[in-house]
Amino acid sequence: MTRAERQAQTRGRLIDVAKEMFLRDGYAATSLDKVALEAGFSKGAVYSNFAGKEELCLAVLDLIHAEKVRGVREAFTREADLEAQLKAFADWAHDGLGEPRWTALEVEFGAVARHNEWVAAELVTRHREIREAIGQLIEYVVEEAGLTSRLPVPTAAAALLSLGVGLGALRSLDAQVDIGVFTDVMRALIPPAETEAPA
Amino acid sequence: MTRAERQAQTRGRLIDVAKEMFLRDGYAATSLDKVALEAGFSKGAVYSNFAGKEELCLAVLDLIHAEKVRGVREAFTREADLEAQLKAFADWAHDGLGEPRWTALEVEFGAVARHNEWVAAELVTRHREIREAIGQLIEYVVEEAGLTSRLPVPTAAAALLSLGVGLGALRSLDAQVDIGVFTDVMRALIPPAETEAPA
Repeated sequence: MTRAERQAQTRGRLIDVAKEMFLRDGYAATSLDKVALEAGFSKGAVYSNFAGKEELCLAVLDLIHAEKVRGVREAFTREADLEAQLKAFADWAHDGLGEPRWTALEVEFGAVARHNEWVAAELVTRHREIREAIGQLIEYVVEEAGLTSRLPVPTAAAALLSLGVGLGALRSLDAQVDIGVFTDVMRALIPPAETEAPA
Repeated sequence: MTRAERQAQTRGRLIDVAKEMFLRDGYAATSLDKVALEAGFSKGAVYSNFAGKEELCLAVLDLIHAEKVRGVREAFTREADLEAQLKAFADWAHDGLGEPRWTALEVEFGAVARHNEWVAAELVTRHREIREAIGQLIEYVVEEAGLTSRLPVPTAAAALLSLGVGLGALRSLDAQVDIGVFTDVMRALIPPAETEAPA
């Protein structure tokens, strides 16, 4: 292995270990030193890869977000017709979007970002990227189904991102909040094929 | 004034002062002692009214929630037809739902609640009450307009609460997040009168 390969492997391992710890113990209770100990690396290895806990948590959230975007994409591309896609999405969303440990971490880190301009800017960039990804997926799905969205795609994407963030925040406190609301709103925003054919 | 009246007045004044401080400085930076000082009361007066900072912040959030619910109700009852109601709501929502200091406090206090079962349970009770109030308002609005909601009322109420929480959380970091998305979704969830008359 080259030095660059070893460094990438160390970084990847640290992010994996940090992900488990942030999800298990929360943001406040996790430290770079604890992550180094649990991953079996020196403190120096952690600090040479990440300037601080904020940067490490952003890397963890990037990993989680990529998993979530992949989960949504798979639900909508594995199945052929819209009804099966929505069903596959609803099944995935129950645990995928509804995971309380993840949504709790997002809420806790969002509160941290309020007091750190750099973290806030990094989070805002990510929210915009996720909104873009949702918009592209909406365009793909409605085009494949020969439909049009009731709302302009950027508005629908902003609505679904906000709805997901809000449901996640409420679910992190109240497991009875039904994640199915997300799919119900998706359905309501897509007009039935019978009444509104595409131009 | 009787003793009970004086106590109610003290409590009200403490909540008013605490509201300004929580909104201005955030949850972490505010303390019962600072509130006592700024309100011109003894520490004893504060501690005899509130068991702790969590309880004081819940009282502040109750006051803010009541203001918000009143703002929404007024938008939908002051105007006669649905289009004017949605316009009045959109105008109110821009500052009413979009106030970053308030949404930031909700996010910060939500993160606190993760580590305190009692606070979490109190917040959950409030979220359910607000969802109920939204549901009642939806029923009133669609019935007045002679329409039906595209979604069952409890689902629509859960969706709008989650959407509001999510938009607020995103806006507390990014002022460019458009609160107008909320009204757009409301519109999309109400079918036009022409195509779907009530049974």
